[in-house]
Amino acid sequence: MIAKSVEEERRQKAAFLLGVPKPGEAPLDALLVGSLMNVRYLTGFTGSNAWLLLYREGQAKLFTDPRYAVQSKQQANCRIRIAKGPLTKSVVPEIARSGVKRIGFEQDRITVAQFEALRKDLPSRAQLVPVSGLIEKLRMVKDEGEIALVRKSVAINSQALEAALKRLKTGMSESDLAAEIDYRSRVFGADGPSFDTIVAAGARAALPHAHPGAARIEPGMVLIDMGAFHEGYASDMTRMVYLGEADAKYKRAYKAVLEAQLAAIDAVKAGVTTNAVDRAARDTLKAHGLEREFVHSTGHGLGLEIHEPPRIGRKDKTKLEAGMAITIEPGVYIEGWGGIRIEDTVLVTANGCEILTPTGKELREL
Amino acid sequence: MIAKSVEEERRQKAAFLLGVPKPGEAPLDALLVGSLMNVRYLTGFTGSNAWLLLYREGQAKLFTDPRYAVQSKQQANCRIRIAKGPLTKSVVPEIARSGVKRIGFEQDRITVAQFEALRKDLPSRAQLVPVSGLIEKLRMVKDEGEIALVRKSVAINSQALEAALKRLKTGMSESDLAAEIDYRSRVFGADGPSFDTIVAAGARAALPHAHPGAARIEPGMVLIDMGAFHEGYASDMTRMVYLGEADAKYKRAYKAVLEAQLAAIDAVKAGVTTNAVDRAARDTLKAHGLEREFVHSTGHGLGLEIHEPPRIGRKDKTKLEAGMAITIEPGVYIEGWGGIRIEDTVLVTANGCEILTPTGKELREL
Repeated sequence: MIAKSVEEERRQKAAFLLGVPKPGEAPLDALLVGSLMNVRYLTGFTGSNAWLLLYREGQAKLFTDPRYAVQSKQQANCRIRIAKGPLTKSVVPEIARSGVKRIGFEQDRITVAQFEALRKDLPSRAQLVPVSGLIEKLRMVKDEGEIALVRKSVAINSQALEAALKRLKTGMSESDLAAEIDYRSRVFGADGPSFDTIVAAGARAALPHAHPGAARIEPGMVLIDMGAFHEGYASDMTRMVYLGEADAKYKRAYKAVLEAQLAAIDAVKAGVTTNAVDRAARDTLKAHGLEREFVHSTGHGLGLEIHEPPRIGRKDKTKLEAGMAITIEPGVYIEGWGGIRIEDTVLVTANGCEILTPTGKELREL
Repeated sequence: MIAKSVEEERRQKAAFLLGVPKPGEAPLDALLVGSLMNVRYLTGFTGSNAWLLLYREGQAKLFTDPRYAVQSKQQANCRIRIAKGPLTKSVVPEIARSGVKRIGFEQDRITVAQFEALRKDLPSRAQLVPVSGLIEKLRMVKDEGEIALVRKSVAINSQALEAALKRLKTGMSESDLAAEIDYRSRVFGADGPSFDTIVAAGARAALPHAHPGAARIEPGMVLIDMGAFHEGYASDMTRMVYLGEADAKYKRAYKAVLEAQLAAIDAVKAGVTTNAVDRAARDTLKAHGLEREFVHSTGHGLGLEIHEPPRIGRKDKTKLEAGMAITIEPGVYIEGWGGIRIEDTVLVTANGCEILTPTGKELREL
């Protein structure tokens, strides 16, 4: 017996979900997958233009364009249609031919224009049903192969930080340090950064999503938020370094954020809801009088994308499951002064979690 | 008198277009801009989560989240709303308060789920009107400041190629060469690559959008497709190098593609339609018996995005205008053998075009 590929198994799980409708709804006959990452997850195809039509019986057809004629055959072990022109033009006849009636579509990925292009040409018996997060839900819990890739991604990321920090000097520009980080990361085996590397020195660290610029890194705090993709899987880490001797205000804030981060990590465990993890970080910062300076959520899932469900925020009630890979990253931001964030990638386990990020979190002065 | 910012001028032009409806339609009272790049073009804001509501009278309100509270104030000179939760939740009350009736929305950017979230809460007098490419149309023709940034981006890109090629050696992996390219590009002033750098050696060059992998670069052809972003503006170039002495088949194919590229460049001129430019490339390859191996279109506009209108393909009839920045990039791909593509970034002028890419196109053996 030939073993099924991991992608075939995923398609089978997804197809099964099509037959398990929400109460009061009929099952779906097929799902039109419009998210490239969901297509990748279900087929292995990594091209930049693709839809997948997945049938409840488990068959699947991939639609892409002539640029990917060779690559799609190499990567995807399902039927493939090389479409000329918009993918909608090829998907509609396939839906018509197959005779399916209830076709789910990814409403968070398909644009209004794409939807209209589909709707207007579909046979009248076919009905488009909005679907949210169905494949993303499967993707939340990582399998062994995925966890191995996240581990490797995290290791590369930490290696790259150390290599880049060896080259950090007062007067270097933020963007040159970011370039070092990205280069080291690639040399250590990353496909590329999993998001635009953030290097924010001094008061610029008050911008949680600062872009590294021509600004010189002067003595003081430096916030570094970086991630790698390794064979498609993301890592994510934030570390602070202080050029020179840290002052008392920085030390106090650093200690508070680290305490909050550790409290949130302590709260992580299969069965716990994500808002409880967020609350652990938020309550700790509150005890330090810093809860208003914590302007974002505590973390997010990651995998094929740098931001995936679950969100770990105040209002999110996803129950954690063993095998989820998530970030824990509380931070405080004070306009005109700077900001502090500490972030690890962690793996949820039955009894708690494993911190995947190997880089230490002691206050670091360079 | 205080001079208007370039973004204010762009908003004014865009607002003017709202008052010039298609025949048989009423003017729009406002436009909900959902594309981040359109938001950046109209406000200067570079955050990763934003919508802009632009009124026909020219006022504008930017919606983003608390992560960008500081940055949005620094970058955008319009009203700003820091929204907690989904942006739809803040946009709807603004629309209700303002009393506007016909609100255009970017149907190619807004997802079905976002549309539904807007629609269900809007006052009944408000009507959402699908709009396509309105801001993109303005963006097609670059102003002097934008052209200067594209020029700089192109220069960085060519510099980076030369610096990286100095390090190219037989046995190096594709991904290590890609890492060199990206690093040099950053050091020379790029914000980052404008797309995932393509390095494809030997038969892998048959994949027009190959991802550089662990494969070693052996004697033979190497296709390098690379671009930089500089202050947000893209460049795009493809060059071939041959490690060792090129054989006759490679030389013939290279000559054919170069001829096609030069023919297309010759055809570029304000007033010419884009399909005529595509035809010039295609006809030349046909004369060489290679038209079936040319599986994509001849080029595309670029600017804040690496792919922008106009498309330069067989069926595209956009009239070129002076100030458009476009790529010209015919290629041929032969499974099992390899592929050849040659690409420049060019600026359309009244009488022809200026080739911005300074890198030579002679057949290059290393």
